[in-house]
Amino acid sequence: MKASILTIGDELLIGQVLNSNVQWISERLTAIGVTVTRHLSVGDEMDEITGALRFLQSSCDILIIGGGLGPTHDDLTVEALSRYFKIPLRYDEEWVGKIEEFFKSRGRPMTENNKKQGYLLRDAVRIDNDCGTAPGQFLMEGRTRIFVVPGVPHEMKSMMDRVILPKLLNDPSLGSTRILKETLLTSGVGESALAQRIEMDVERIRNIEGMSLAFLPSNTGVRLRLQMRASTPEEEATFRSEFTALEKACGSDAYGIEPGTIEECVHRLLMDRGETLAIAESCTGGLVSQRLTRIAGASKILRGTLIPYQTELKTRELGIPATLFEQSGVVSEASARAMAENIRTKWGTTWGLGITGYLGPEGDAFAPGGTVWIAVARENRTLAREFHFENHRERAQERAAAYALDSLRRALT
Amino acid sequence: MKASILTIGDELLIGQVLNSNVQWISERLTAIGVTVTRHLSVGDEMDEITGALRFLQSSCDILIIGGGLGPTHDDLTVEALSRYFKIPLRYDEEWVGKIEEFFKSRGRPMTENNKKQGYLLRDAVRIDNDCGTAPGQFLMEGRTRIFVVPGVPHEMKSMMDRVILPKLLNDPSLGSTRILKETLLTSGVGESALAQRIEMDVERIRNIEGMSLAFLPSNTGVRLRLQMRASTPEEEATFRSEFTALEKACGSDAYGIEPGTIEECVHRLLMDRGETLAIAESCTGGLVSQRLTRIAGASKILRGTLIPYQTELKTRELGIPATLFEQSGVVSEASARAMAENIRTKWGTTWGLGITGYLGPEGDAFAPGGTVWIAVARENRTLAREFHFENHRERAQERAAAYALDSLRRALT
Repeated sequence: MKASILTIGDELLIGQVLNSNVQWISERLTAIGVTVTRHLSVGDEMDEITGALRFLQSSCDILIIGGGLGPTHDDLTVEALSRYFKIPLRYDEEWVGKIEEFFKSRGRPMTENNKKQGYLLRDAVRIDNDCGTAPGQFLMEGRTRIFVVPGVPHEMKSMMDRVILPKLLNDPSLGSTRILKETLLTSGVGESALAQRIEMDVERIRNIEGMSLAFLPSNTGVRLRLQMRASTPEEEATFRSEFTALEKACGSDAYGIEPGTIEECVHRLLMDRGETLAIAESCTGGLVSQRLTRIAGASKILRGTLIPYQTELKTRELGIPATLFEQSGVVSEASARAMAENIRTKWGTTWGLGITGYLGPEGDAFAPGGTVWIAVARENRTLAREFHFENHRERAQERAAAYALDSLRRALT
Repeated sequence: MKASILTIGDELLIGQVLNSNVQWISERLTAIGVTVTRHLSVGDEMDEITGALRFLQSSCDILIIGGGLGPTHDDLTVEALSRYFKIPLRYDEEWVGKIEEFFKSRGRPMTENNKKQGYLLRDAVRIDNDCGTAPGQFLMEGRTRIFVVPGVPHEMKSMMDRVILPKLLNDPSLGSTRILKETLLTSGVGESALAQRIEMDVERIRNIEGMSLAFLPSNTGVRLRLQMRASTPEEEATFRSEFTALEKACGSDAYGIEPGTIEECVHRLLMDRGETLAIAESCTGGLVSQRLTRIAGASKILRGTLIPYQTELKTRELGIPATLFEQSGVVSEASARAMAENIRTKWGTTWGLGITGYLGPEGDAFAPGGTVWIAVARENRTLAREFHFENHRERAQERAAAYALDSLRRALT
């Protein structure tokens, strides 16, 4: 099956917004064996949209149309579809009721212009939006399956995952070739060290027809993406066994499989052991705690966090003597150890995590800008490690938080 | 002048690569007064490329074609142009000499297939590639200026900046039009409520020739982008005065102009007043603190943060009596007020910020999942407000953090 993707919005054409939706949709469609042949973006203009429909419709079995579903006057997608396909609109009372509820649950009044989002194409099936007010739509026109989705990425993604992709997977016209893809997550190890560790596997994978391996480094670790076109059970088995071999070769550097995160891994390890954590984080400013609390049920493992951003709080709240800072520096092994140990005993948890650093540009006589010390404490044992990051606050915060979670993970396994 | 951008490459259609080139080119063209009307991407197939040329050529004065200029058999751009426009190819000995030099300077041998990159359209002017082997080309076809550039981003950007944009700027058809653009940042107000507040301005702006206003909602607030094509000082003055009017109409809902952030606004307000802040944030898990500490010098205004993730810490560290939670609930006005007031007095700061909520899915008898209370305390005065967010942890955390910063900003102004 061939697909085209039409995205609508002036913000794309003036270059204000990067069109990440079209990449996301393309990746998902490709994975289920659909061939994407055209991406087209046009502005919020009636003639442009109808012209785009004319160009795309004849050549595809699937047409995904994203954007232009908002409540304002420049949102023209539904009207353009109505004109081009000569299908009148219908007013969906039920959906307007849901929009009203949506606003009510947020304690805000629904405005008059939101009612516009209650108009659907007469022949279309509504696709519910579970996180916004613009409904999606599904329509058959000749042999073309047309799906209309909002431009807001998470609303679009939810509709694709809940409704559109499952529907296409059930479509008998879809062949049996699938793209198998699995991504192994590693942390605490650099790209070249990892490449060396799994050298033999990389060589073997290179020689398997249709299989490829990509190293994807990021601020939070290196991801290894294994990919293969498969249409037989034997090919699927080869893929599985190669992925397992890769996982084994990575050993303790691997912590999970996408879409897992390192915080989920830490959360799970603590839950399994029935243990708790207290954090004293300074330069990361709350990022480690925020990542852990993104997980539902985080209060079962995280007792709490202290962010002693001004040094004096490290003395007052953690009982670290000012003389320690004078002798070793605020950013030092001694400081990180004391933070981890003292927050642990203060709040009576199994584990204590201490993070202190200078994100830069400035440092002090003890530690230059970019230095971060991370310590992990349990009863009678504390491990501390020093890191140096580039002088870019946001990236340094992210990398420090990732290494802190990785240090905790390694101590837990 | 109207422009279309055609990008060619299977890697775009399978979603392997994010098409950032098209955004970059669009932004540059828009800035010099060109109107981009279409973005189209097709794969490395002859019929698809010629079909794309047919669709785009008739409707534009400028056509930028990117990608498909490599040395391999699936790079078809030049051949497709030759077929579609019926222009034979010529072999550019001089460019092949440059390719040879390019390889020699890198100590690598030139491969035979690189010679393919020496073929140009007979009627085209070569655009030199100063960091790669694929030459760009410029061609007039009817009224359309066609530019062919490589898909490698830095090679494309170099050609655009060195040759193509200067050439367009000198084109008499471009005229003296410039695009003026300014984005007003608002927070703490929804899109529809904001639209209602500035209804009259929106109406007035709609009637000004060449001016447009876009509402860009996000998790952290609604941005208002005012844009105008201007070619005279009078038009520029109109733009300025409309932007000022818009700013005024938004009143306290506006906090700055892009690329500012609300945390920068709060930071600046506190710095100006020489005041300090202490935070007790629970459900946001450290996000408010992390956003503030992204700013260099945050330790001058932020004394520290307590994240009492388990309720018992709210009693132990903030002295909030357990009876308050039993009577009013952990997520309640009384709880948020006590958090803000007690962290302020505990650490002796000018301001205290308290955030407590259930991100969901679960809540309790006092507050359903999605409820968040935010309180801002100063000496003798505390303001508290209730919010309801959707049951999606990460987004609810982001929105709660944005509203917390907004509450602080409003209290400071």
